[in-house]
Amino acid sequence: MTIDLHSGTRPAGVDAAVAAARRVIDALVRAGDMTDADMSDIADRLNAVADDLDSSSPPVDDRLVDMWRGDGMTRHDPVAGRENPIAPPLDYTAVDSRTIEAEATLGLPYQGPPSCVHGGVSALLLDHTLGVANGWAGASGVTAELTVRYHRLTPLFEPLTITARQISVDGRKIRTTGEIKAGGETCVSAEGLFIAKHPPRPR
Amino acid sequence: MTIDLHSGTRPAGVDAAVAAARRVIDALVRAGDMTDADMSDIADRLNAVADDLDSSSPPVDDRLVDMWRGDGMTRHDPVAGRENPIAPPLDYTAVDSRTIEAEATLGLPYQGPPSCVHGGVSALLLDHTLGVANGWAGASGVTAELTVRYHRLTPLFEPLTITARQISVDGRKIRTTGEIKAGGETCVSAEGLFIAKHPPRPR
Repeated sequence: MTIDLHSGTRPAGVDAAVAAARRVIDALVRAGDMTDADMSDIADRLNAVADDLDSSSPPVDDRLVDMWRGDGMTRHDPVAGRENPIAPPLDYTAVDSRTIEAEATLGLPYQGPPSCVHGGVSALLLDHTLGVANGWAGASGVTAELTVRYHRLTPLFEPLTITARQISVDGRKIRTTGEIKAGGETCVSAEGLFIAKHPPRPR
Repeated sequence: MTIDLHSGTRPAGVDAAVAAARRVIDALVRAGDMTDADMSDIADRLNAVADDLDSSSPPVDDRLVDMWRGDGMTRHDPVAGRENPIAPPLDYTAVDSRTIEAEATLGLPYQGPPSCVHGGVSALLLDHTLGVANGWAGASGVTAELTVRYHRLTPLFEPLTITARQISVDGRKIRTTGEIKAGGETCVSAEGLFIAKHPPRPR
């Protein structure tokens, strides 16, 4: 099995709206209580957008069936999902038949220590990237155990390279490793044990 | 040292705007490409909000100094931060002198497997909660190693309890454990090794 590593860009609607929502997220964290903007006006405008979306969207169960249609990459996940404003989003390219990578620069919404990426965000990015590497290598599953080691602080506002490689497949056990580098130095590394099991997709 | 476990609510502005942004995030993931809403109009309105915030906000360096002022809980992190739309946000209460917990129900933006919490999101929530437990117990630091075990899938749309407890402090090494439960069953558990080190706060 090969998978499409790119969740693709839809020129119309949703991707542009989600990209704009990412700008709002970043601007709100940057604003905090230091802004001159009228925050109750901002709240009203955002609530109006949410109201308009809610009143024209399908029931959640229908959307779940829709988002899980097909067998390729989904578009809604919180790491690479073009339809998820929480996702940076990562955009993967193949390095070889078992290895993938993505580049990303993270801003204030992903902060842990001052000016650094939150350790849990690094774990989130790595868990997902390991899973995508498994799909790319042809044997995937759900995470059973993830170990993340923090070698040095991971900077915000600088290009990061996130890499993952499937190491072995032994029956249903899949082992995969990955790392986050900044300026050529490894900041975070991860080892994952995955079990070849596929929860049913909603129908 | 004791810390204020609650990052507090500011009745005015920013918290309300951020809460509205969370509604937008959720509504966008629910809408996807199944909505009848005019998504280029939605994109325009969100970009206008981002433009207004950007033009009335301080330079990032000034905001960094502001958000790290004082020694208590910060308000901007991606897990408990009232000022961060990415955060669910968790709201912690003390269980005993070394243990804290939070309840949360997660929606579509946090999805991994169908109708389940993304494994990396569980890692993010646990890493942060372990860190807050360390602060509460009186000895905190940065994550050196985090091991996360996935026992069963963690459901979306159901109340979860996220708990963390500081187990030991040995010189600069701090060990902390935590778990995520749904309906009384452990879905995910974590062990963290933290090093008592505090990156400088921006001045």
